[in-house]
Amino acid sequence: MAAWSSEVGDGLFARRLLGVPVLIYRLPDGEVVACRDMCPHRFAPLSMGRKTETGVQCPYHGLHFDRTGRCDHNPTGKGHIPAGTHLRMFRIVERHRILWIWMGDAGRADESLIPDLSLVPEEGGAHDNIGNYLHVKANCLLEIDNLMDLSHVNFIHEGTLGNESMRSAEVKVTEPDGKVRAELWMPGTTGGFGPMTGQPCDQWMNMVWMAPGSMILEFGAVPPGAEPVQDPYCYAFHIVTPETDRTTHFFFGSSGTFDETEAAKAQFIREAQIRAFLTEDNPMIEAVDERMDGADFWSMRPAILTNDKAAIRVRRKLEKMCREEEAARRAEAGRVSASEPATQ
Amino acid sequence: MAAWSSEVGDGLFARRLLGVPVLIYRLPDGEVVACRDMCPHRFAPLSMGRKTETGVQCPYHGLHFDRTGRCDHNPTGKGHIPAGTHLRMFRIVERHRILWIWMGDAGRADESLIPDLSLVPEEGGAHDNIGNYLHVKANCLLEIDNLMDLSHVNFIHEGTLGNESMRSAEVKVTEPDGKVRAELWMPGTTGGFGPMTGQPCDQWMNMVWMAPGSMILEFGAVPPGAEPVQDPYCYAFHIVTPETDRTTHFFFGSSGTFDETEAAKAQFIREAQIRAFLTEDNPMIEAVDERMDGADFWSMRPAILTNDKAAIRVRRKLEKMCREEEAARRAEAGRVSASEPATQ
Amino acid sequence: MAAWSSEVGDGLFARRLLGVPVLIYRLPDGEVVACRDMCPHRFAPLSMGRKTETGVQCPYHGLHFDRTGRCDHNPTGKGHIPAGTHLRMFRIVERHRILWIWMGDAGRADESLIPDLSLVPEEGGAHDNIGNYLHVKANCLLEIDNLMDLSHVNFIHEGTLGNESMRSAEVKVTEPDGKVRAELWMPGTTGGFGPMTGQPCDQWMNMVWMAPGSMILEFGAVPPGAEPVQDPYCYAFHIVTPETDRTTHFFFGSSGTFDETEAAKAQFIREAQIRAFLTEDNPMIEAVDERMDGADFWSMRPAILTNDKAAIRVRRKLEKMCREEEAARRAEAGRVSASEPATQ
Repeated sequence: MAAWSSEVGDGLFARRLLGVPVLIYRLPDGEVVACRDMCPHRFAPLSMGRKTETGVQCPYHGLHFDRTGRCDHNPTGKGHIPAGTHLRMFRIVERHRILWIWMGDAGRADESLIPDLSLVPEEGGAHDNIGNYLHVKANCLLEIDNLMDLSHVNFIHEGTLGNESMRSAEVKVTEPDGKVRAELWMPGTTGGFGPMTGQPCDQWMNMVWMAPGSMILEFGAVPPGAEPVQDPYCYAFHIVTPETDRTTHFFFGSSGTFDETEAAKAQFIREAQIRAFLTEDNPMIEAVDERMDGADFWSMRPAILTNDKAAIRVRRKLEKMCREEEAARRAEAGRVSASEPATQ
Repeated sequence: MAAWSSEVGDGLFARRLLGVPVLIYRLPDGEVVACRDMCPHRFAPLSMGRKTETGVQCPYHGLHFDRTGRCDHNPTGKGHIPAGTHLRMFRIVERHRILWIWMGDAGRADESLIPDLSLVPEEGGAHDNIGNYLHVKANCLLEIDNLMDLSHVNFIHEGTLGNESMRSAEVKVTEPDGKVRAELWMPGTTGGFGPMTGQPCDQWMNMVWMAPGSMILEFGAVPPGAEPVQDPYCYAFHIVTPETDRTTHFFFGSSGTFDETEAAKAQFIREAQIRAFLTEDNPMIEAVDERMDGADFWSMRPAILTNDKAAIRVRRKLEKMCREEEAARRAEAGRVSASEPATQ
Repeated sequence: MAAWSSEVGDGLFARRLLGVPVLIYRLPDGEVVACRDMCPHRFAPLSMGRKTETGVQCPYHGLHFDRTGRCDHNPTGKGHIPAGTHLRMFRIVERHRILWIWMGDAGRADESLIPDLSLVPEEGGAHDNIGNYLHVKANCLLEIDNLMDLSHVNFIHEGTLGNESMRSAEVKVTEPDGKVRAELWMPGTTGGFGPMTGQPCDQWMNMVWMAPGSMILEFGAVPPGAEPVQDPYCYAFHIVTPETDRTTHFFFGSSGTFDETEAAKAQFIREAQIRAFLTEDNPMIEAVDERMDGADFWSMRPAILTNDKAAIRVRRKLEKMCREEEAARRAEAGRVSASEPATQ
């Protein structure tokens, strides 16, 4: 995820992703363009420049780049443009109110790998809770660890989201369709949040991870013994993207499109989310990152608890994806260097 | 030295020592506990957690650790605790209103090596000047260098503690009982501070270093030719502990337990100490650290003056202690790896 | 360039040059002294000390160093001074209101290499615009790149110094006497700044670089077809010196000694200069440095435009100078190590 659709308005939008400065902008026909935010001439940030009808103009010496990244105008001197003056482009797709970017080779982009965020509600509800963002000073995987082991709710969020009665739940982990699903079923407990707060109930929090960084939470509470039907509005969305190795973009929100009579409910969820992340989760995640100080997770030989199961599976899946991507890249590089002369 | 006893109250006390985050707390029976301030599960700072009647509870997922560092409760899931889930513990001893810590292997701790700070007065005087602390942005040895060569007093502290008449004193260095004692005897000079300020007198400043970082100053002034008797209240205490390679904890204070009629005297000494360190010594020590920028002291080939004698001896002794400790560690490591399988 | 003459007054002046902390001061007989700003005893910054009639005294333990850098007084102990206690000295020369320093071996200093800044006006005009300084968070060569390719004027400074009519000028580069001269002749354009602003005119901006970092701008505008005579007061001066690899001292000003009736003209130029550098050039140069993040310029394979010609020639000349200086240093080191025992 590069950004919420709503973050990219009429202007030039700049964000560092996976260590790379990226520029994102919309053309008049609605196309969204993503490129490296650096002019190939003298390395100026194009985001300090000017959007045109057909592309972007560098602020430093005026080179213009079209939607494909090709330099199509040099206003200085006799207008000569050296061959190969082009931007590094990134495939970007808008879906479910989110801009999804592929930071690798365009040829390897595969839209079928975009996670299914169709539960994100349509825009326009009276109390829309989509589009939240926080910057986290921690490695991205620590944010995923946090979300995939919800037993932390009863400690970090004790009294706001969780309580002692909810602690003994043991996580059940499944892997439907390559996702990782962590189910916490807490029958006969005291409601931790929402309308059942403080009342006897059966409650649940199920977190579903989709590669690489999307996590959807299903949650609910019913009177003891009642059928645990998932409310179609009780979903929370959490998507993480590395800014750098030690900093993370954290996108979040929740469904749904509440009508006027449900304003209080939407408001409650939004405020609980923001308060929890800002004042309870993030200080902890950032403190852990500081303690790790860039060391490899496994080299620190963590004690593994039962409820780590889901987070560990996600880590293992991501490690496997990285290994496979790296192997493919190396194989590709071998083919290229065998058949072609080197180019920029 | 980890802390003044008075710094560790009822709560959890966190301080980085020798680069390691350390947690210190008191149990109801008075025992003081010191451990690494990092949960072995997900590396949360335990100091963000909660002290219990018998130990400390991690703030993140609720693991509890007893006074020996053993994890004795996992409130989540079915309560399973993986074998070997324990904290790194440090030996800590309270003596002379100070908490002394041993950061190495507990088996190599030796209380007889704790320096003798019995001159630190008992608590409870009307004008107690024990418990002062400053954070210094410099390598610990630069603070020791400063204190072991008091000829700097007549330059950095000219007009507040020293003066020109005191400059020509040559340091006399002895090594009683493995200590390093630097004596500055300044007969026929003008009083630099205290009641004899500005008057003809014989005065002295003797600094006694005890490994690794304690320095006690004896000082006084008498009319010319009178017997130079050390006033039992005229001692100043300086103890340094590395926080990191480039930052230092500096603990200081002075005797004694002054009664009401001597309030002005105690107050004078305290204020002179704090003002001198804060506004005169520390800016210089930090400027020197910046100039050295992490380089080895000897590699910078310092010019060695007569009055460096004591500081150099301390540096040589500390270098020897480090070499011996390292050799012992390596010998121990050799024995362990020959006789046992590796463990965490 | 170490400093404007006017920057070094009666006291001790400290500035980091080429990564080295340098102290500069004036003796009563007018001689200017430059030395490493670090005492060879305990590495204190001498600039925190005291200027005397004959040299400088260290603030820490009082060592005194004469104008040649020799330690000629140790006020402590018996006054012994270890052989070889001296400062690293730098050759420094005052010329054209500027202090020029040679940071290499004194034996290799060559005053004939000081660039000719004789166009800098004498002191004392009513509206003197000499002595301006800005600190830039970017590699020094990026500042030179900026000044040697003035086609940026019509983008970064569009509306204040440049405009669209001036864009198509192609730079003409010559190398008179080892200098690099970049001429932008813009006939039949609209005046970009100065008295001809907004009027049809023929205008020019010629930048002349002298090694290593001095750049003099000649500029002017005349009615179309008139003879383009350079106004003797229309020069702007730009001199850069590395503070570190990523930070630069930027000195600037302009001629001339305007009389009272021309006050508005002098004022206009000064204000335009300061505003342009502070709010338009430097933010861009610093953004480029951030994008490069310490990488080698050529390794980033910049697209080379026609108007880069002058900046590229300067880069090539500086690279050649560095290679030659390095080779000479190595040859010298070889001779020294073959004929002499090593000394400090």
